[in-house]
Amino acid sequence: MIRKVLIANRGEIAVRIIRACREMGILTVAVYSEADREALHAQLADEAVCIGPAPSKDSYLNMERILSAALVTGADAVHPGFGFLSENSTFARRCQECHITWIGPSPEVMDRLGNKSEARNTMQAAGVPVIPGTKEPVFDWETGLSEADRIGFPVMIKAALGGGGKGMRMAETRGEFQSAFQTAQKEAKSSFADGTMYVERLIRHPRHVEFQIMADSFGNVIHLGERDCSIQRNHQKMIEESPCVAIDDTLRERMGSAAVRAAKAAHYVNAGTIEFLLEPDGNFYFMEMNTRIQVEHPVTEWVTGMDLIQEQLRVASGMPLSVTQGEVRLSGHAIECRINAENPAKNFRPCPGKITEMHLPGGFGVRVDTAAYDGYVIPAFYDSMLAKLIVHGRTREEAIARMRSALGEVVIEGVDTNVDYLYSILNEEEYLAGRADIEFVERLTERL
Amino acid sequence: MIRKVLIANRGEIAVRIIRACREMGILTVAVYSEADREALHAQLADEAVCIGPAPSKDSYLNMERILSAALVTGADAVHPGFGFLSENSTFARRCQECHITWIGPSPEVMDRLGNKSEARNTMQAAGVPVIPGTKEPVFDWETGLSEADRIGFPVMIKAALGGGGKGMRMAETRGEFQSAFQTAQKEAKSSFADGTMYVERLIRHPRHVEFQIMADSFGNVIHLGERDCSIQRNHQKMIEESPCVAIDDTLRERMGSAAVRAAKAAHYVNAGTIEFLLEPDGNFYFMEMNTRIQVEHPVTEWVTGMDLIQEQLRVASGMPLSVTQGEVRLSGHAIECRINAENPAKNFRPCPGKITEMHLPGGFGVRVDTAAYDGYVIPAFYDSMLAKLIVHGRTREEAIARMRSALGEVVIEGVDTNVDYLYSILNEEEYLAGRADIEFVERLTERL
Repeated sequence: MIRKVLIANRGEIAVRIIRACREMGILTVAVYSEADREALHAQLADEAVCIGPAPSKDSYLNMERILSAALVTGADAVHPGFGFLSENSTFARRCQECHITWIGPSPEVMDRLGNKSEARNTMQAAGVPVIPGTKEPVFDWETGLSEADRIGFPVMIKAALGGGGKGMRMAETRGEFQSAFQTAQKEAKSSFADGTMYVERLIRHPRHVEFQIMADSFGNVIHLGERDCSIQRNHQKMIEESPCVAIDDTLRERMGSAAVRAAKAAHYVNAGTIEFLLEPDGNFYFMEMNTRIQVEHPVTEWVTGMDLIQEQLRVASGMPLSVTQGEVRLSGHAIECRINAENPAKNFRPCPGKITEMHLPGGFGVRVDTAAYDGYVIPAFYDSMLAKLIVHGRTREEAIARMRSALGEVVIEGVDTNVDYLYSILNEEEYLAGRADIEFVERLTERL
Repeated sequence: MIRKVLIANRGEIAVRIIRACREMGILTVAVYSEADREALHAQLADEAVCIGPAPSKDSYLNMERILSAALVTGADAVHPGFGFLSENSTFARRCQECHITWIGPSPEVMDRLGNKSEARNTMQAAGVPVIPGTKEPVFDWETGLSEADRIGFPVMIKAALGGGGKGMRMAETRGEFQSAFQTAQKEAKSSFADGTMYVERLIRHPRHVEFQIMADSFGNVIHLGERDCSIQRNHQKMIEESPCVAIDDTLRERMGSAAVRAAKAAHYVNAGTIEFLLEPDGNFYFMEMNTRIQVEHPVTEWVTGMDLIQEQLRVASGMPLSVTQGEVRLSGHAIECRINAENPAKNFRPCPGKITEMHLPGGFGVRVDTAAYDGYVIPAFYDSMLAKLIVHGRTREEAIARMRSALGEVVIEGVDTNVDYLYSILNEEEYLAGRADIEFVERLTERL
């Protein structure tokens, strides 16, 4: 059994992990940067080690310093949380070389799933639907068009090196294809000095739906239902919920089985998430697999009653999963809101600074995960998430009413927050009706 | 449907009720004494009315002022919480006379159950076991002995006007009876100027086990399982949990049915609690029925997933119960610790004053109900309860581990608290083994 865990992270997730360890009688080592001397995670852990200056590269991303802290304190395991080094297979490998247990999948599995085309091939081989598209790079519009015919319209034409919407065009019909391809390729050449293109089926109005899976080293893999994370802005999730209103038991069984097959095909161990795009007609497509615990794991914890961090610690200690698939019961409805120190009116600009007054809600069906406190100074160096507010109700309606009430109770003075913005989402007809897809926030922002 | 509720209470239960109302879209009116100007409940409610000076008789117990506040603000219902006027049938009656809905049972039912001998007769008639004892007052030892023979030894001899252990003696055997009776009666005469005595079967090493019931105005009555409240000191509960380890499904069914029969016999409506003494052999006896919500209701909320305050509001609005008995599922294990501002080393003397620093736990499986905050000044006028810490786990072991960890995280500076004392109970072999009865704290206090 793991005896002492170094938590290679900060903020609420570090606090979350410390609590899980403490409940299991496992000692904890926090690491903190010079900017985090007053941070809650450093105060709550059994031991705390300063690992360098505030910039992440000098501390939370500095493998040598973190490993030194682990060796000095005699930690026999590292929990990476999310962000920072959590998906860095080199760090996982270095931990193993130092005989320190990595609380996550093996570096080899991380590599395999981190490589998008290899991940895609693994999923296809396991019978998990992927977005139909070209298998080989395309260099001319004629080849592209015959591929598009095979794939089926509408399609997206994408630059291989693309990003930020550059070198990307949609073609609704055959007639639009040539011109769209040529425009995209020209843009790709001028932006990335490379005209390598791909063609993919256009997924219309999809939801972002992800399945939580949990696997032990005995080959047991289970899924813990889904999370609808469609309420996002620039790929930053804002509100997550479980279950997803667009998924019935039959579809859940199909998607869950696909997620379990995906994890088995990748020889996955520990907690992971399979992200899908879900079309309104019920078709779903593999996007990627996250090889770590996620920010939004609490909604799954609440509908399943399972402590996912404790489960990670058990699995990493070589123990089997605490439940079988048949024992997993999804109960009620959970919603998470990410409260950030940012100004929605100024394009969500982060707003670090001192919290001069803070009151967070509590009571029945309300969970708060935070490392902030009255008087805490939010450093400018890290992400702007201040607290996660999670609620549970017997139904989605109950959960929404509870979240509204809880958000209404939040008082945070001294810094700007997105609390009012979150509140306004919870009053949008489209959200309330359960019709929000991943373009919802974009539409909302245009309107507001 | 109720539109606006005046909460005739303060502290965490007032906050609790405000939250439930807000989630249901019901407006709230707080009342506060001059000592509670800065109190959280007064800040959170939609409206707040000062009802007088700090002493309870001038404010929280002052019916006229509370009713005036209700009339002035147009509240159409009053929630009394617990303590203060919550079991005062005169107040309930006055509310009704002002056409204000009383969120609780009718005054007639309150009267019937508040009268101990009438309550006892009602229960017996409904087939609910009561502690075997004399039905008529006893004035001489000879009559007492023949009654004791009928009841069965060991017995307790009690002064009718007794209290605080005065005028009370145990008789283990026939031989001890005469002397015990005479001593008790002598003490009763000198203490209460009255020698009226009762004889009751002595219940050995009982647990305090209570059943939560919920009844609507259509005659539907359900029970929501039990709470073991044996960890108490001078009848002040300290730790409560659900379920009770000494109760299996068969016994739960028997006790639960008795509780439902009891409520039906009393024509009970709204939330109530039937308190039983449970002997190690599984025999149980009715003690009393509490005609209000209780401090420890959150443990029931967590194992059932039901919001009991919302259920009270629904029932008081004339709606039926939201679930049937068959739909009630008890899931996992919940424990509540009452965190008080008091000094256990000084005979639990209350310790009002300013909280100069406060950190309370959160995260998975942890609920905090409190009206305290960093900088809050605890007034000397009211009870010393500062916060309720409630945890849930899949098993009792998980819940205990979580409670230990959560208590370990509590920081309250500026006033003394019982946190360390609670923590020490959670490390007692007898508690951990689930063997603690209502004499447990007494034994522990002697040892410490």
